[in-house]
Amino acid sequence: MITLDLKLPDAHYPIHIGRNLLTRTDLLKPHLPIPSAAIVTNSTIAPLYLAPLEQALKAEGIATRVVVLPDGESYKTWDTLNLIFDALLAGNCERKTTLIALGGGVIGDMTGFAAACYQRGAPFIQIPTTLLAQVDSSVGGKTAINHPLGKNMIGAFYQPRVVIADMVLLDTLPDRELSAGLAEVIKYGLLGDAEFLAWLESNIEQLRARDPAALEYAVKRCCEMKAEIVGQDEKESGVRALLNLGHTFGHAIEAGLGYGAWLHGEAVAAGMVLAAATSQELGWLNAADVERVISLIQRAGLPVRAPDLGLTNWLEHMGHDKKVEQGKLRFVLLKQLGQAVISSEVSHDVLQRVLSGQNVTA
Amino acid sequence: MITLDLKLPDAHYPIHIGRNLLTRTDLLKPHLPIPSAAIVTNSTIAPLYLAPLEQALKAEGIATRVVVLPDGESYKTWDTLNLIFDALLAGNCERKTTLIALGGGVIGDMTGFAAACYQRGAPFIQIPTTLLAQVDSSVGGKTAINHPLGKNMIGAFYQPRVVIADMVLLDTLPDRELSAGLAEVIKYGLLGDAEFLAWLESNIEQLRARDPAALEYAVKRCCEMKAEIVGQDEKESGVRALLNLGHTFGHAIEAGLGYGAWLHGEAVAAGMVLAAATSQELGWLNAADVERVISLIQRAGLPVRAPDLGLTNWLEHMGHDKKVEQGKLRFVLLKQLGQAVISSEVSHDVLQRVLSGQNVTA
Ligand SMILES: NC(=O)c1ccc[n+]([C@@H]2O[C@H](COP(=O)([O-])OP(=O)(O)OC[C@H]3O[C@@H](n4cnc5c(N)ncnc54)[C@H](O)[C@@H]3O)[C@@H](O)[C@H]2O)c1
Ligand SMILES: NC(=O)c1ccc[n+]([C@@H]2O[C@H](COP(=O)([O-])OP(=O)(O)OC[C@H]3O[C@@H](n4cnc5c(N)ncnc54)[C@H](O)[C@@H]3O)[C@@H](O)[C@H]2O)c1
Ligand SMILES: [Zn+2]
Ligand SMILES: [Zn+2]
Repeated sequence: MITLDLKLPDAHYPIHIGRNLLTRTDLLKPHLPIPSAAIVTNSTIAPLYLAPLEQALKAEGIATRVVVLPDGESYKTWDTLNLIFDALLAGNCERKTTLIALGGGVIGDMTGFAAACYQRGAPFIQIPTTLLAQVDSSVGGKTAINHPLGKNMIGAFYQPRVVIADMVLLDTLPDRELSAGLAEVIKYGLLGDAEFLAWLESNIEQLRARDPAALEYAVKRCCEMKAEIVGQDEKESGVRALLNLGHTFGHAIEAGLGYGAWLHGEAVAAGMVLAAATSQELGWLNAADVERVISLIQRAGLPVRAPDLGLTNWLEHMGHDKKVEQGKLRFVLLKQLGQAVISSEVSHDVLQRVLSGQNVTA
Repeated sequence: MITLDLKLPDAHYPIHIGRNLLTRTDLLKPHLPIPSAAIVTNSTIAPLYLAPLEQALKAEGIATRVVVLPDGESYKTWDTLNLIFDALLAGNCERKTTLIALGGGVIGDMTGFAAACYQRGAPFIQIPTTLLAQVDSSVGGKTAINHPLGKNMIGAFYQPRVVIADMVLLDTLPDRELSAGLAEVIKYGLLGDAEFLAWLESNIEQLRARDPAALEYAVKRCCEMKAEIVGQDEKESGVRALLNLGHTFGHAIEAGLGYGAWLHGEAVAAGMVLAAATSQELGWLNAADVERVISLIQRAGLPVRAPDLGLTNWLEHMGHDKKVEQGKLRFVLLKQLGQAVISSEVSHDVLQRVLSGQNVTA
């Protein structure tokens, strides 16, 4: 097991990465202010992993309630969130009852937001069960639900007490979901670590084959980078925005097609190709760079071509993005491979060329 | 105009108290990160005060949207909150658009919570229009909505950028609402300032007659006390709980009768009498002390006798209170007039006697 420490101005918490951690109550217990917990999970994950966790907690004398939500991004809504509140209140759960998110990014984001709001803030713990959640969503305290007019529009910055990433849980993850997680892994290489990008180019097949050492290294490297960035800029007033590489385009794809049609990671993958294409238009990347991006994303089993939303739709959905400032769209682009920057200087022309796919080489 | 400063560990904000402040855009403008605002108010207040505020902002070149909500505690729900989100998103409002709460505690609590959640945190400003909001709810950053199983159960600690309390707005406040506000004013005297309590006993008629100097003094003294307490304990891990004097009982009354039947301040008034009676049972107050409490509350035009909820209902509703810890009810009681303490040592017997009204002298 490796343990990283995410340091914020007035808090810090551990991120444990390893194998067979699910029932390691020794990692959980120090973070429960009272011996009372509520596990939030979904109907796919519950039959796989709920019983061992619940039993381990109960064996330690921790009063444990369970909330099983329906599975899917389309349920990342207030109505589903309310199922958590209903269960907590019906069970007389107190402000110090710890919410434990056992699931992927959808469960983690909703459980974190529920914890942020329940009695104005209950403790919470992340046990991410997808690659995407282990490398990205479980770390850093962004929580949210969707609104029909925009993804993750309603939420909070609210940090977990501990993150426990058990690699073994990835064994049951469908291939398509594993690939979606690899999109965020590739994102880290592209935005800030050319060496890691090169390592990914050499190890992408091992990762898809779930080679334990390769997976553990990738999760560790991503969490290190995320912890460092979030430690510098918890509320995304600066550098944290770089983590949104591919996401302005990606969120528009998700909203444009209707949440759930494409996986988040798939939308981000196609979004990163568009970000690379835009960077090429600005003269920052050359054709070979863009080809490297496309090839790695393709080898990860991910789409490299965005769906045709139509320019009006693209602009409409990107206009709702949280990175809009003073009416200007802000894009995360690539100065070079391994170095992202924020730019609000993308002209309408460039955008139109990129979105109509005229310069995408794949 | 008097200006107080609420100092928190890593922020501080001004509380302006005076007359004719509604159109003083000089007090607002320094707190808007971009020239874009959304005024949130209700259908009662809009015809009275919306136009002057909106015009003043527009005259300063501030793009201003308006959201008019239905009026009433029964609308302090997610559905109403969603009307704010719908309007913000339909209007392409950004993360830096400032939400301005123009209203009483219901509007203030909902607007604050909407700001806390919108794009994970938009700036917000409080312009309280009721006495209760001016002395209590607009200051200190508690925001919330109700859940059918408990009042203010879903919310956030989220501070405004500035609070602007314009006494003139109180001129149109119905008498019953003014009295409800006086309940919270009396609360401050009882919990922490025997001298202020004595001042209230001498000035309660002037306050009910809306004597400008008396009102301004009372608002100032309450805000001073609130600012000091919140400055010491923003998240209510200690001393801030004292501000809930009368509220454990009061919230049970509100929930037990259905939100809206009694005003919040009325429920708190009857709740303070019960807290005083409990304190007498514990030997801390004597009969004359309790009589003083009852008499002042009565003179303020407030109920001194709680409705008969039945013991099971009382306990059920108090069990959902945020002050429950490890299954124990925690009460704010009076060691003496002007000094509140927290106690989780109220026996079932004492509670039963107090709730059945056997020892209430009025
Ligand atoms: N908070 C953040 O910082 C952040 C960052 C990135 C993404 N996100 C959010 O994360 C969400 C996507 O997360 P995700 O990709 O984990 O999707 P997800 O949570 O929907 O999980 C994907 C699917 O895999 C299933 N599953 C999860 N773990 C499994 C396991 N171990 N075995 C078998 N099946 C399993 C789930 O039930 C689901 O059907 C999006 O809503 C996105 O907005 C948040
Ligand atoms: N956040 C906190 O710290 C805190 C503290 C105390 C109370 N509260 C909350 O505050 C709420 C009660 O607030 P309230 O007592 O202000 O009630 P309110 O907001 O419902 O206002 C009372 C009534 O007066 C009307 N009104 C408001 N201003 C007016 C004016 N100037 N002229 C004429 N009519 C006017 C309103 O439309 C409403 O009908 C409760 O929901 C309570 O939980 C919050
Ligand atoms: Zn993402
Ligand atoms: Zn109150």
